[in-house]
Amino acid sequence: MSVLAEWLGMLAAVCTTGAFVPQVLHVWRRKSAQDISFGMYFILVVGIVLWLIYGILIVAWPVILANGATLILALAILVMKVRYDRVPKR
Amino acid sequence: MSVLAEWLGMLAAVCTTGAFVPQVLHVWRRKSAQDISFGMYFILVVGIVLWLIYGILIVAWPVILANGATLILALAILVMKVRYDRVPKR
Repeated sequence: MSVLAEWLGMLAAVCTTGAFVPQVLHVWRRKSAQDISFGMYFILVVGIVLWLIYGILIVAWPVILANGATLILALAILVMKVRYDRVPKR
Repeated sequence: MSVLAEWLGMLAAVCTTGAFVPQVLHVWRRKSAQDISFGMYFILVVGIVLWLIYGILIVAWPVILANGATLILALAILVMKVRYDRVPKR
């Protein structure tokens, strides 16, 4: 049961982090992020930074690595949101 | 240190779950989700379901509650994405 749980947890982490990759590509290709919520990605980035500090404090590498990767992807979406909203393509 | 880490972890969970609330409201108000990636929310929902099963297996209530709430929000965005893309307002 414990090994199954561990594998499920790792697969879950890969999914919830990897999920942001298609969103980065979607916004990048369309050069549009008007339907993306600035508030969501702002709060998300704050939350991920808190997860990172938490992971460092309790020395949990899976937490550090998963959130490190998600932080880069969430920041990319946030930066594109600000940039593309300023000069809208539509 | 342990109490600080615990509080940081809880605050982090509140942020990364709560972050989806402004995105739900954003899409709901605009009735548009073209910049939202279907792939992101599909993979995210799969990942959150895996986190839920993981939380149930290791009997971790914070994991169960945080992911239960995020699942509802992510599903709401996914359903609106499918619905609003079918009948675009623009």
